[in-house]
Amino acid sequence: MVQLIRGVFFDIDDTLYDSTKLARMARENSIKAMIDAGLNVAGEKELYSRLNAIIGKYGSNYQRHYDELLKDYGVKWNPRIIASGVVAYERTKAGYLRPYPGTVPTLIKLKKKHMLGVISNGLAVKQWEKLVGLGIHHFFDVVATSEELGYSKPHTRIFEYAMEEVGLKPEECVMVGDRLDTDILGGNRAGMTTVLMKTRREQEPTGREDTPKYEICSLCELPPLLEGLG
Amino acid sequence: MVQLIRGVFFDIDDTLYDSTKLARMARENSIKAMIDAGLNVAGEKELYSRLNAIIGKYGSNYQRHYDELLKDYGVKWNPRIIASGVVAYERTKAGYLRPYPGTVPTLIKLKKKHMLGVISNGLAVKQWEKLVGLGIHHFFDVVATSEELGYSKPHTRIFEYAMEEVGLKPEECVMVGDRLDTDILGGNRAGMTTVLMKTRREQEPTGREDTPKYEICSLCELPPLLEGLG
Repeated sequence: MVQLIRGVFFDIDDTLYDSTKLARMARENSIKAMIDAGLNVAGEKELYSRLNAIIGKYGSNYQRHYDELLKDYGVKWNPRIIASGVVAYERTKAGYLRPYPGTVPTLIKLKKKHMLGVISNGLAVKQWEKLVGLGIHHFFDVVATSEELGYSKPHTRIFEYAMEEVGLKPEECVMVGDRLDTDILGGNRAGMTTVLMKTRREQEPTGREDTPKYEICSLCELPPLLEGLG
Repeated sequence: MVQLIRGVFFDIDDTLYDSTKLARMARENSIKAMIDAGLNVAGEKELYSRLNAIIGKYGSNYQRHYDELLKDYGVKWNPRIIASGVVAYERTKAGYLRPYPGTVPTLIKLKKKHMLGVISNGLAVKQWEKLVGLGIHHFFDVVATSEELGYSKPHTRIFEYAMEEVGLKPEECVMVGDRLDTDILGGNRAGMTTVLMKTRREQEPTGREDTPKYEICSLCELPPLLEGLG
């Protein structure tokens, strides 16, 4: 028997917008701006790598990455350099926080027949800022964040919560995301139909549980895929 | 004997750019966005007044004004509403963070013959972010912030520090600012020639010490004024 799909749930980063490119451009531009403001301890490439390492170590929600960068090089705390990095980062972010070309048309199409949701690991306000900044927050009937739930993907509880909120069963739901270890693994375990957005390179499924049911390269492929399922 | 003016020092907010307008527009737009995101406990005007009261109470560098606004109305913490306020605020700020029309031409003119400085109350990185965001940080030979110095305007120490950094004596220096109680009072006490930027309404000097030597309505008036002094 063919099961009608009634709900579609999305990851945010690298699924609804190009988060990887945003981060790369924002970090590159922050480095350029700090050099312009007087940071002269290393070249752009080395500073970029060091900054990435610091963000990896302290997490992306830490507020003092640039302070740590100066410390790493034994440079005295310098508000001019830090402010230059912050402003360049924020302005680049504002410029690159745009939905993928396929995102909005797809949400509009799906909205006619489906409940739509977001299932996201991260701080609630930060993740909502992305949806609001992307201009797509009005599309979603539920937004489940790990901060609010106390469970992160791939834990099934966050997927179950999102489905319960819109009154749907797993067999009626699709999970779309770019990561095997969170979106696909968790979606499969929760009993949803999983769709991998192939925006990341170098991911190999480790076993049956993190193997996506379908793969797409753009959200534009999603409506015809769902039509086929229905 | 006529004393040559060699240094010109500026306050930032409402002296180099329209800080009052930026704050008003950013707060208004954050309220509109929060209403759009589902905040329906009061009208725009009332919410705006309440937000202003909260910012007055907690200070402008506090990070959770919108959380407090929801609390004030007994609304459950809502990351969607808070994020909508934050994004609207940041975007409006980015749009309005522009120098006054007279600022850049004046800095270019003065830079030929004068040392230029900033003397500012506030957090160092925040104040530098304004200078960087305004695109004018390269003009200044010294930027003195109260956070770094441990003294705020009108304390003479912050003015003296700025002058010492560029090797000038008070009689060689001009202080330009919009506030009688900080810029003008402190500049006068430090022995500088004081110039009031008349961007604020309703300020009455309380006595001789906070009476500006000169008054201007635009920074464009400053170069000819200094020519006259020289």
